[in-house]
Amino acid sequence: MFVPDPLRAAVSDEAWLAAMLDAERALAEVTGDEEAAAACRPELYDVERLCEEGRADANPVVPLARALRERAPGAHRGATSQDILDTAAMLVARNARELVLAELDGAAAAAASLAEQHRSTPMAARTLLQQAAPTTFGLKAAGWLVGLVDARRRLAGARLPAQLGGPVGTMDPELTSRFAAALGLEEPVVPWHVHRGPVAELGAALDAAAAACAKVGLDVVLLAQTEVGEVSEAESGGSSSMPHKRNPAAAVLARACARIVHANAGLLTAGDYEHERAAGAWQAEWPALSAALAFAGGAAAAARRSLEGLEVHADRMQANIAVEALPGEGAATAEALVDRALAHYREST
Amino acid sequence: MFVPDPLRAAVSDEAWLAAMLDAERALAEVTGDEEAAAACRPELYDVERLCEEGRADANPVVPLARALRERAPGAHRGATSQDILDTAAMLVARNARELVLAELDGAAAAAASLAEQHRSTPMAARTLLQQAAPTTFGLKAAGWLVGLVDARRRLAGARLPAQLGGPVGTMDPELTSRFAAALGLEEPVVPWHVHRGPVAELGAALDAAAAACAKVGLDVVLLAQTEVGEVSEAESGGSSSMPHKRNPAAAVLARACARIVHANAGLLTAGDYEHERAAGAWQAEWPALSAALAFAGGAAAAARRSLEGLEVHADRMQANIAVEALPGEGAATAEALVDRALAHYREST
Amino acid sequence: MFVPDPLRAAVSDEAWLAAMLDAERALAEVTGDEEAAAACRPELYDVERLCEEGRADANPVVPLARALRERAPGAHRGATSQDILDTAAMLVARNARELVLAELDGAAAAAASLAEQHRSTPMAARTLLQQAAPTTFGLKAAGWLVGLVDARRRLAGARLPAQLGGPVGTMDPELTSRFAAALGLEEPVVPWHVHRGPVAELGAALDAAAAACAKVGLDVVLLAQTEVGEVSEAESGGSSSMPHKRNPAAAVLARACARIVHANAGLLTAGDYEHERAAGAWQAEWPALSAALAFAGGAAAAARRSLEGLEVHADRMQANIAVEALPGEGAATAEALVDRALAHYREST
Amino acid sequence: MFVPDPLRAAVSDEAWLAAMLDAERALAEVTGDEEAAAACRPELYDVERLCEEGRADANPVVPLARALRERAPGAHRGATSQDILDTAAMLVARNARELVLAELDGAAAAAASLAEQHRSTPMAARTLLQQAAPTTFGLKAAGWLVGLVDARRRLAGARLPAQLGGPVGTMDPELTSRFAAALGLEEPVVPWHVHRGPVAELGAALDAAAAACAKVGLDVVLLAQTEVGEVSEAESGGSSSMPHKRNPAAAVLARACARIVHANAGLLTAGDYEHERAAGAWQAEWPALSAALAFAGGAAAAARRSLEGLEVHADRMQANIAVEALPGEGAATAEALVDRALAHYREST
Repeated sequence: MFVPDPLRAAVSDEAWLAAMLDAERALAEVTGDEEAAAACRPELYDVERLCEEGRADANPVVPLARALRERAPGAHRGATSQDILDTAAMLVARNARELVLAELDGAAAAAASLAEQHRSTPMAARTLLQQAAPTTFGLKAAGWLVGLVDARRRLAGARLPAQLGGPVGTMDPELTSRFAAALGLEEPVVPWHVHRGPVAELGAALDAAAAACAKVGLDVVLLAQTEVGEVSEAESGGSSSMPHKRNPAAAVLARACARIVHANAGLLTAGDYEHERAAGAWQAEWPALSAALAFAGGAAAAARRSLEGLEVHADRMQANIAVEALPGEGAATAEALVDRALAHYREST
Repeated sequence: MFVPDPLRAAVSDEAWLAAMLDAERALAEVTGDEEAAAACRPELYDVERLCEEGRADANPVVPLARALRERAPGAHRGATSQDILDTAAMLVARNARELVLAELDGAAAAAASLAEQHRSTPMAARTLLQQAAPTTFGLKAAGWLVGLVDARRRLAGARLPAQLGGPVGTMDPELTSRFAAALGLEEPVVPWHVHRGPVAELGAALDAAAAACAKVGLDVVLLAQTEVGEVSEAESGGSSSMPHKRNPAAAVLARACARIVHANAGLLTAGDYEHERAAGAWQAEWPALSAALAFAGGAAAAARRSLEGLEVHADRMQANIAVEALPGEGAATAEALVDRALAHYREST
Repeated sequence: MFVPDPLRAAVSDEAWLAAMLDAERALAEVTGDEEAAAACRPELYDVERLCEEGRADANPVVPLARALRERAPGAHRGATSQDILDTAAMLVARNARELVLAELDGAAAAAASLAEQHRSTPMAARTLLQQAAPTTFGLKAAGWLVGLVDARRRLAGARLPAQLGGPVGTMDPELTSRFAAALGLEEPVVPWHVHRGPVAELGAALDAAAAACAKVGLDVVLLAQTEVGEVSEAESGGSSSMPHKRNPAAAVLARACARIVHANAGLLTAGDYEHERAAGAWQAEWPALSAALAFAGGAAAAARRSLEGLEVHADRMQANIAVEALPGEGAATAEALVDRALAHYREST
Repeated sequence: MFVPDPLRAAVSDEAWLAAMLDAERALAEVTGDEEAAAACRPELYDVERLCEEGRADANPVVPLARALRERAPGAHRGATSQDILDTAAMLVARNARELVLAELDGAAAAAASLAEQHRSTPMAARTLLQQAAPTTFGLKAAGWLVGLVDARRRLAGARLPAQLGGPVGTMDPELTSRFAAALGLEEPVVPWHVHRGPVAELGAALDAAAAACAKVGLDVVLLAQTEVGEVSEAESGGSSSMPHKRNPAAAVLARACARIVHANAGLLTAGDYEHERAAGAWQAEWPALSAALAFAGGAAAAARRSLEGLEVHADRMQANIAVEALPGEGAATAEALVDRALAHYREST
């Protein structure tokens, strides 16, 4: 319900298996083992069974490497299971990130369109939820836009390095370099088995992206309140008991997804990686990374859905301002700020 | 890999659907609608489709209620979707909790057995990971035991109230009382749609249970270090690259699971439930509660597996003490403390 | 700004020093060392210097014990620094908790009074922030009340055990029993140096208490919105730039404080206590526990301030309902639910 | 005990007041109000009283602006209190960050020196805390180094924008531009009153920096174990009860500090900023940002202290390897990796 199907697929067990085999294949290729490369086809392996067997080793690559070697004795040579899993994690992240970015782009485009269209639509600004002074709906949308654009840039910029350190991180860096190139991943300075900057950075960037979406959701929910009534979602959600209700369902989902991303990002940034391979912190990353990617995409898709075709009730916005006589003459500069935000957006695309 | 199959099933989409239908059935029964009660059979509904359709409403009960009413027009009468989902959550939690408690019981029994068996086995106590003074392995196991017993008690004691407030929490409490009784859930004082004490309490209790298991995992990992060598897991895990390794895989998994529970418990205790139904915080609970239950069970199962048949190398414990001359004569009272812990355990069962 | 002065004092460095000396004095008394007992006067020690010197040992009790022994060579006998610090933490918690509970009581009394007074005051209930069906303000206040009462009970029930395990937790339990009795703290089954159930329980209970206060804050903030206007705080806050504003400042502070408590509670429940004394997790508890206590009190004080003398605009509530024709007839049962909540409150006091 | 004195000063209430007055002064200067600029002297105001008075408004700038206007009626013109507080937060962050970076630099230099000096010192690598294959201590130190260098770069790169949006974010951007230039802060695209990317980014960067320090602490604690004995801290900490102990106190403090940073970073990235000024989430940032800055500095200072003069027991490292016959020949490439890390470090300085 929360996560678009393509994203669910992109972080599924099957996607992880395919990514692990991509890593194994790249390893086979850079070491010139054609037999091993040929064995790296997902349809040959049963992901359920690998997960089940992996429990005994706290690691699904142990049974996978065993199965590979049955077909190609030279497979997995030189690598440690963490090399395969970390590289797979980066490949999964790369694919899933593309989907998240596409949803963010959609949300940003919708916000930009609202900012442009309502560049001069007056509405009340609210501080501590009290009407404060007039602003424009264009500027509100411009704020969302800048938030989305900046979060997108940060997420797109998160490093995705390959991992190929061998059992204890002493693998020849020249081999790592070719391995990274083969996969189109970044080459690390040294193995990052226990220096999880990249994972933490990615987790924090997903968190920031989801937070930018949740900000949209929060404002939409507040503006859609019965007593405010300044926006409605085009496809409002229904209620099981109250047929008259028009719930801002997408905005609600954006907020819900962001809470889940935040929880998982907290895990991905929590540290505690012992010596040359962590005994718990590393293993916990797998489900948390999948969840952070999936629900960040869920947040972005929901924010996009909320913004695309958002019904803006400019008359109600105007009427609400009349509720109280308000000081201020900010409307003129508000337009200039909208233009700045749109320029910033255009530069970013 | 992390979660035992029965627990995965207990928090699956299918389990949630069955629980929602149990709630709808109980409602139908207490309102005397036999037709509606008869419609509450899981095989009649497609959980995938309900989740998909629920996206539009940010709520899977909206399409479910629609589907129910197609079969029995009186179904869902008086209830709001949150009544069904919250009650279902408590039913899912009750079933899953039984499985978690069973694993905790197994872990506690194993710890008690170790405490008894090694009541007088001397070993070095370590503070800040430095050898400090002698203790006994029995006392270490007794500490785990008390931690597990207390966490178990807290988890078993977490309230699981029914929810039947109607659209805005003004349902006749007499009906709620019968509904709760029909399901064997606790009767709330008033609806708890937005007063999530029970959810937070459950989340915190699962966190505490997982933390007690992770403490076992941490100590086992430390004691199993090559240079310490005081315990080994009976079924140690292997490595994909180093055949000589005997990894304390279960202890590692216990720690990994506990990190995941902690992240999700943080969400379940984070508040922010607006007015009479929250716009985001409530919806985020569903995957988080499932994850907290499942991984708490994973932590307990792993701690149990680690402890059951843990190989205790008493000779190595003795030899390690010799590393440094140590002051202290605590061994005598250590035995008394083990006895206290065992008595505490027996009282609790 | 966030924390009432008495609470700031209750968790200050001075309060911690006094509590440590209370623990040392109780130890001296149960071991019959009058000289040591006499040395346990706070005015003899410089808390700034102890903190400074404690850095070298990651522990302020090491220099304190040194200073004590200069006056009374037998001081601190048998104890380890964690005994003193953990016991001091429980004493600090006991004192600070009293203050938190008093603020919670004030908030609950104010909520009860509102529930009683507005037992039949109609207002719109809002789900997902959309008007749903009528309720009463009395029932809304009753919900706050039950949340506060239950959180108070949980906080009041959190165990506060003494700690006296000696260097490695092998202290004679009979001595611990007398030590606990002397201080009026609970007697633990075994030392809890690394089994932090009590700390986690306290942290979670403070989190729950703050969340109950934040729920009040959230609803007040939403009801005080310009467009809703159903409540105002008696002493609304001002703005530096907009003289017309009447901000629900206390409600805002309650929410802010709760966020801080939640962050610190997350630390207090995070586990990772190695062997017989943790190398990091334990030390991190000290500032986190102080913050959790102080800001929980801040949240409760702010919720109380918000509720005491809350201006309820019943006419506006009535008028707002007219915004949309609403189905439902829950007002009658709403009164019954208010009565249940008030009865629950009275039982709890 | 945790935080170096200069950092404590840099985030003190006095430092915040000075920073707020710096912001007010810059505003006065860019608007050409010399009288107001002259009134911005910290010694004229009582920070305790401002905090106390600020409680009524949930905001210390409200009384500060009042006090300023008593001296210079034109002071604070056009600004909103959040402009002053957010700008002050960035100024406080800038100053405190300098101190954190200096400690990180010290830690990195010490790690680099260890990497260089022990480029070829063999030791056992440990995965899941089991001896795996040989590595070198130089490579371990090189890993710390890269972690520190990358975290430092991220922290140094965190944006620190000025804030000058006026009451509702519609301030003339030209004025904001001059204001930012006057203070040497970044110019934002649009006001970021409720788009907290910069705060979240800073919080996440502090978290990452502390995590890099905690990784050092964790490894040092593990290597310093009695049974491992491969390093000791030059100034080991003592124990109140066990005179023989040599605790790795600085490593322990690094870990403790990082836990506190992580908790506060979680708050700084949690979102929920309503409309044009948040009712709770913003206010909670102030203590959390101070804590994150201070304890990140504490973590860095402790990691530095641990690394500077770390005693490396190469003989023990060698002897420990003999514990088990180990496969592998990574020592040669380990040296190449150390050189890569050192080159990366040199490029970064």
